[in-house]
Amino acid sequence: MKPVQELLQGSRRALARLITLVENSDPRKEELLRQLFPHTGKAYLIGITGPPGAGKSSLVNRLLGAMRKDGFTVGVIAVDPTSPFTGGAILGDRIRMQDHALDQGVFIRSMGTRGSLGGLSRATREAVQVMDAFGKDFIIIETVGVGQSEVDIVKTADSTAVVLTPAGGDSVQTIKAGIMEIGDLFVINKFDLPGAERTAAEVNMMLDLKEESGWRPPVLPVVSLYGEGVAELWRALLEHRRYLQQHGLFEARRRRRAEGELGELVEFLVKSRVWENIRTQISLEQLVESIALRRRDPYSAARELLRQIKFPF
Amino acid sequence: MKPVQELLQGSRRALARLITLVENSDPRKEELLRQLFPHTGKAYLIGITGPPGAGKSSLVNRLLGAMRKDGFTVGVIAVDPTSPFTGGAILGDRIRMQDHALDQGVFIRSMGTRGSLGGLSRATREAVQVMDAFGKDFIIIETVGVGQSEVDIVKTADSTAVVLTPAGGDSVQTIKAGIMEIGDLFVINKFDLPGAERTAAEVNMMLDLKEESGWRPPVLPVVSLYGEGVAELWRALLEHRRYLQQHGLFEARRRRRAEGELGELVEFLVKSRVWENIRTQISLEQLVESIALRRRDPYSAARELLRQIKFPF
Repeated sequence: MKPVQELLQGSRRALARLITLVENSDPRKEELLRQLFPHTGKAYLIGITGPPGAGKSSLVNRLLGAMRKDGFTVGVIAVDPTSPFTGGAILGDRIRMQDHALDQGVFIRSMGTRGSLGGLSRATREAVQVMDAFGKDFIIIETVGVGQSEVDIVKTADSTAVVLTPAGGDSVQTIKAGIMEIGDLFVINKFDLPGAERTAAEVNMMLDLKEESGWRPPVLPVVSLYGEGVAELWRALLEHRRYLQQHGLFEARRRRRAEGELGELVEFLVKSRVWENIRTQISLEQLVESIALRRRDPYSAARELLRQIKFPF
Repeated sequence: MKPVQELLQGSRRALARLITLVENSDPRKEELLRQLFPHTGKAYLIGITGPPGAGKSSLVNRLLGAMRKDGFTVGVIAVDPTSPFTGGAILGDRIRMQDHALDQGVFIRSMGTRGSLGGLSRATREAVQVMDAFGKDFIIIETVGVGQSEVDIVKTADSTAVVLTPAGGDSVQTIKAGIMEIGDLFVINKFDLPGAERTAAEVNMMLDLKEESGWRPPVLPVVSLYGEGVAELWRALLEHRRYLQQHGLFEARRRRRAEGELGELVEFLVKSRVWENIRTQISLEQLVESIALRRRDPYSAARELLRQIKFPF
């Protein structure tokens, strides 16, 4: 495929086009990813997650500065699963990262939900592969850390930073419960706000309660508005990378990612074929009607559908 | 099944046990739901959603008071997808609704994420069915409104109230984009906070921009802490119900729900069988290893796996 050659030769336009192609589930996608695959695996993936309003985009903007100063190229995928219908905050993300809009060493891409969240997770993985093949040293996946599916998206990163802000009411508490387990680093952003020390202490206490040997996630004070603490965050990320590599954990994470990817694809392929089969062979309408009228329960209806599907596909 | 008889006779203990059985995917689940199905379809489902910290649980607590005063029985399912790993805020939810802990006409149940979010959505639907068969007049599904999957959960409700709070920074803005489309009613909770009028005006403006005929979602000021505006919310919910019934939309929503349910079950059954088949027939390890080592791309690996599966199951 011509765009593949262009991508491997460093064309940013090809990069943008191929990500769009992947995102739109273009029929050429599978062949494209197959061709790119041998060129992937070199980029280091950083997950950035946290509740809405934690200042993740501004933090990424600052982090990009630190990474670029060290001469690394970076791709950013800003995932916005809070927008299942509209474009939502996507434009906002881009604006917050605009310091790097003209920098050739940075490529920023926003992704909203199209179709199911499983689809978003797959689209994100595949966009990562395209950026990886393009040759980015680091790829940042930024996503709102609420709900299992967003957790799944960042879970595949090599290092994940969880961004929190000083506690205001119960909301931070609520969210913390869900994402404490996936953080390799914790950032307390907006550290100039009241309650920051207490939030940091709370997170440290939670981390100390976990009886785990090995890497102890650092809790880092940051004020991304002024860039304070960002250099330390960048150093901590590099340190975590070193730790994974020295302890043979890097490969384990990659294997887990491969496993997740394979599982996701198998399910996706099976589901697609089942629906294709149903669409062309079976009339759903009557079945749906009979459930709505309580004449038939959903489980027996589903089993009857499956019986009518022609296997092997 | 004995507990089914007990449930239909009004045993709260049977209700609790059967929801647990459903939640744990007990092998008897399918048969149980089949037996309950003819007794379902009578309850009216109310979805309550909004960002973390919007005060949804306190609002539900107040709403329960209004509903009980009118003599209706109510079931509440508080879905907490922010806790993929721990129990999280579940205890907190129960505490916030404890006004009704001893009321025999109210049954409150919290559900956290176990396994996938698809699983949570299914478990919620099925818990609704159990409560419905038990005879609750109304069932409230309360969930954090971020991410497609949470949206999916409330989308199946007959009436959905989206709970917002006076805008503080960009977070409310971010969330609003995702859940504006599913609200039949909008609640501006904590209306005594600064910026409340502006938030209400913003929401009204957004709603006016949508060129839609039919039901215009009301925007309701509420201070759930003091119970202000809760009676109006309850009246608006009843009014929306009347509207759906008078315009023949009620049946359409039910049909859509049946369709979603059927689709979800078909996918679930297919997926389960595929994994069962893979687990017993095929060694995944080598395939995963070859992907991790970049010897084989995930798509061809997935397709090879599918070829090895014995169809029909």
